[in-house]
Amino acid sequence: MKLFHTADWHLGKLVQNVYMTEDQAYVLEQLLRDIETEKPDAVIIAGDLYDRAVPPTEAVQLLNRILKTVVVDLRTPVLAVSGNHDSPSRLNFGSDIMKSAGLHMCGEFDCAFEPVVLRDEFGPVHFYLVPFADPATVRHALQQEDISSYDDAMRAVVERIKPRMSPGARNVFIGHAFVTKGGGAEPNTSDSERPLAIGGAEHVSSAHFGCFDYTALGHLHQAHHVGVETVRYSGSPLKYSISEEKHDKGYLIVELDKDGKATFTKKPLAPLRDMRTVEGYIEEIERQERSDDYIYVRLLDELPVLSPMERVRAVYPNAMHVGQNSVLQHLSGSAEQAEGGGKAGMDMLSLFRSFYKDAKGADVSEETEQLFLQVLREIDREEGERHEAHQADDDGVRAV
Amino acid sequence: MKLFHTADWHLGKLVQNVYMTEDQAYVLEQLLRDIETEKPDAVIIAGDLYDRAVPPTEAVQLLNRILKTVVVDLRTPVLAVSGNHDSPSRLNFGSDIMKSAGLHMCGEFDCAFEPVVLRDEFGPVHFYLVPFADPATVRHALQQEDISSYDDAMRAVVERIKPRMSPGARNVFIGHAFVTKGGGAEPNTSDSERPLAIGGAEHVSSAHFGCFDYTALGHLHQAHHVGVETVRYSGSPLKYSISEEKHDKGYLIVELDKDGKATFTKKPLAPLRDMRTVEGYIEEIERQERSDDYIYVRLLDELPVLSPMERVRAVYPNAMHVGQNSVLQHLSGSAEQAEGGGKAGMDMLSLFRSFYKDAKGADVSEETEQLFLQVLREIDREEGERHEAHQADDDGVRAV
Repeated sequence: MKLFHTADWHLGKLVQNVYMTEDQAYVLEQLLRDIETEKPDAVIIAGDLYDRAVPPTEAVQLLNRILKTVVVDLRTPVLAVSGNHDSPSRLNFGSDIMKSAGLHMCGEFDCAFEPVVLRDEFGPVHFYLVPFADPATVRHALQQEDISSYDDAMRAVVERIKPRMSPGARNVFIGHAFVTKGGGAEPNTSDSERPLAIGGAEHVSSAHFGCFDYTALGHLHQAHHVGVETVRYSGSPLKYSISEEKHDKGYLIVELDKDGKATFTKKPLAPLRDMRTVEGYIEEIERQERSDDYIYVRLLDELPVLSPMERVRAVYPNAMHVGQNSVLQHLSGSAEQAEGGGKAGMDMLSLFRSFYKDAKGADVSEETEQLFLQVLREIDREEGERHEAHQADDDGVRAV
Repeated sequence: MKLFHTADWHLGKLVQNVYMTEDQAYVLEQLLRDIETEKPDAVIIAGDLYDRAVPPTEAVQLLNRILKTVVVDLRTPVLAVSGNHDSPSRLNFGSDIMKSAGLHMCGEFDCAFEPVVLRDEFGPVHFYLVPFADPATVRHALQQEDISSYDDAMRAVVERIKPRMSPGARNVFIGHAFVTKGGGAEPNTSDSERPLAIGGAEHVSSAHFGCFDYTALGHLHQAHHVGVETVRYSGSPLKYSISEEKHDKGYLIVELDKDGKATFTKKPLAPLRDMRTVEGYIEEIERQERSDDYIYVRLLDELPVLSPMERVRAVYPNAMHVGQNSVLQHLSGSAEQAEGGGKAGMDMLSLFRSFYKDAKGADVSEETEQLFLQVLREIDREEGERHEAHQADDDGVRAV
């Protein structure tokens, strides 16, 4: 049986206030063409189809169009679970009605653990669709008081599935979780993966999945296997953060032979615009070839560059961020921008004194220092308020 | 062919800050039982399934459960269009996938006008599903510049449908619009029907529907026919405003004979709690039998009643509003509350002077008048701000 395994589409995603919809449609069109050519027996989407509980209508229309093409036009079953970014009940809408047409969408956590059964020439393959759920939801659904972590929850879920597994069938688990070898913490995460819990309690041990022939995971955006070859993340089809710059994005083709032995092919998807870092002096950058990529620029100039985004966008119209390395930037308090600067680590007032002396050749007066500190406090307060307002916006639409 | 015609469910509706979800589930359960007993060939839902573009999850879960029961468990096709309260693209999600299972949900306006075809022993019945769309959307979709009103839009839609109509078939139109005899204004609207346009331009003439054997409409909440017997509103299944107090709520059973002649049966749905007005003196009301109905109380007492809602809720725990008739209330400026008062029509300052004289036996001083006017201005400003904030909230989630 040939399966396509993908996850973490994050439709409706904004990166630096830019909607990724066009970029998402571009890679998903490639996926559609591959489905048409490769004719897989099913397409697995392991959670985070949307980026938020109430996605914008463009994202709803895009997902609708893609699923309709796969299920109705290409007659390929889709097996999907909701991730921590999706709204369980919104994604679940119509799922019982769509089953008969081949769309198996498991939005809400349900302890029935009834597998979706597909068949090939070697017999049935049982798919267990387990959407993202926090420990409290699983504890309540399974009526099992000893569940307090994500790892407890997953162990309990798999323990419930085991006695239902049919000995003659091959078995595939589809889930959305932070799975690591033995459940330990891993450093290789991306800024675009929202943490599930604070401080390590989000990790799930890969050891739980030993009873499945294949475990198709979503949540982590880099394609990789965990512990064994058969427990895998497909990764996201696009880079959603500059911390994913070095990822090779795409999806997996998984082939299960008659005994359930899986072989893997990683298939790349070409982005409409790449996401990458460019480091250099502003005058070098201005001589570069024009590019529509989403570029994060790190300026090496010692002296502050005026209107840097304007100058950078003449070459990189979709530049997403410009970081400056100059002393002036240190004053803005951005840790990222301060990286590599010789004066990193100095406090604001010391930096200001040093800058003033460099610029004016004299020590700063007491009055000017007070004025500087007052401005700093105002900036701090405004940033705090902006941050709070942003958090409040966020909480209104997010499931977790 | 036997059809159930219903509309305007408004799932997710808040009336005076009370979610109607439990009441909606209660009447829809009756509808389910009737479908099981009566075995209609199809159920028509003529728009406004939800009350807003992004309904609360409880509303999504309720609609999901009802539709799943009708389509999957009771194997009865559903023919639904979006209304002015629904989000076209959100309601449209999965519609192409759900068709094969019998859920025909037309969310987005599409000029294909491909009928849904159902059959009985006398042959095919063609259903034309036309969701709510404003004139601009229809003008753009049909590429027809002469569409400026809702009436123009509907005329154009029906003109496009006519040549596609099959002479051997019976034809049913399903739509969501403000249809009146000849397109004139009608006074009998409810406060819970959101106007589609300002000043009469929202009306659509019933004459356009002459070519259909039956026209199943949604938008107006009172069940009635328009001009001819075969152009009908089913009305909403529940009272959604006290202005609907005298409506008999339910749905329609429509039977089309072999020639397309329609006969009608109005079927009532019993609410969990009725919505009604009670008028009387507070001491009379306190002696009434306890009731869980949604009650709007109009107090007749001449003297102001202190803590009136607290006293009313001892008898009517779900009381929604208490209107007082006393002079004090006139000062609050509510037109509704001033109804029937002998001092209605007086301006605020005159009322205050009159009240002051009644209460104190002397004329109000210049200084006190200024103080009163200042307080009035503050109240006005605060109400204006609250109203604006509320409007802003609203606009964020509403389609129209």
